[in-house]
Amino acid sequence: MTGAEIEHLIKLLARLPGFGPRSARRAALHLLKNRETLMRPLSQALSVAADVIVECPECHNLDTTLPCALCANPARDASQLCVVEDISDLWAVEKTGAYKGYYHVLGGTLSALDGIGPDDLSIPHLLQRAARPQVREVIVALSATIDGQTTAHYLSEGLRAAGVAVTQLAHGVPIGGQIDYMDDGTLSTALKSRKAV
Amino acid sequence: MTGAEIEHLIKLLARLPGFGPRSARRAALHLLKNRETLMRPLSQALSVAADVIVECPECHNLDTTLPCALCANPARDASQLCVVEDISDLWAVEKTGAYKGYYHVLGGTLSALDGIGPDDLSIPHLLQRAARPQVREVIVALSATIDGQTTAHYLSEGLRAAGVAVTQLAHGVPIGGQIDYMDDGTLSTALKSRKAV
Repeated sequence: MTGAEIEHLIKLLARLPGFGPRSARRAALHLLKNRETLMRPLSQALSVAADVIVECPECHNLDTTLPCALCANPARDASQLCVVEDISDLWAVEKTGAYKGYYHVLGGTLSALDGIGPDDLSIPHLLQRAARPQVREVIVALSATIDGQTTAHYLSEGLRAAGVAVTQLAHGVPIGGQIDYMDDGTLSTALKSRKAV
Repeated sequence: MTGAEIEHLIKLLARLPGFGPRSARRAALHLLKNRETLMRPLSQALSVAADVIVECPECHNLDTTLPCALCANPARDASQLCVVEDISDLWAVEKTGAYKGYYHVLGGTLSALDGIGPDDLSIPHLLQRAARPQVREVIVALSATIDGQTTAHYLSEGLRAAGVAVTQLAHGVPIGGQIDYMDDGTLSTALKSRKAV
């Protein structure tokens, strides 16, 4: 019905997260209608990024330099290490501007179901980094899911053995959150962790 | 926070329909994690498609050949012409397998608000094609929206003057549709167009 080249393009686009066959079709048409302003620049940007972006051997972030811009920045606080599951989490924390230490990307969470153990993640490397004398606190910023919390628990044991303080993100009602829309778990945690005002 | 190359890639991805800044970020990470299996092939497919895909001068479909595979197929019924708004509509009709004639892509609908008149669309070309002796019926397959129906009305006047039969898609309850979820307009149209069983 359409050229093999369009079908091939739609098939690849459909593999992007958030895209299905129908939205990939729409995106392909949109790209073909904007060839010079979007399609060719995107092709170029993909190829350039695939060439120049490398994983930082220190924190496992992605950047064009080795080590990455975050690890190479001497102005950051070397006493703090923030552990995140994925690079998107690192970006989210960094966007807040509330954290000035260094990062460590695990690359996933422990999962008995999926057979993911400590050696499949960058956990041994994290323990090495945490053992350095300048590190005083490791902030475990993992998702408040079962796998995230299991991993956080596992990490805190290993890290305490390395002699650093281990903290985790506060749980409670999100800013802007409405009480009657909160689930029981969040509300009871928020109640237990209540603070004097 | 991240390399300029990643930011540039995210900005371009965010311009795809259905993507926003957050989903573009997720897609960029997914691409970077699948460089050889997805990122480079996608870059390649975009560049190849941008090079080889052209608009058919006959029906305004997109394909790699001139005229397109549909127009070049002599087995199709030359007495029928199906008018659609966009190429995605052509794909949708073609996918049903219920239509064997030729197509004509308008490239939009008439819109007084957006200042789109007949000459901004391929309407003059449609009237030319409809005037050919072999064409007996023009099926107007435009959306059941205000602009779509205004355009359909405009077309039917011009086409009848060219001496061809003009038909349009039936309106009614979609297959699988539940009566109590239908809007008043659809239900009253379906009632008025009821058929003997």
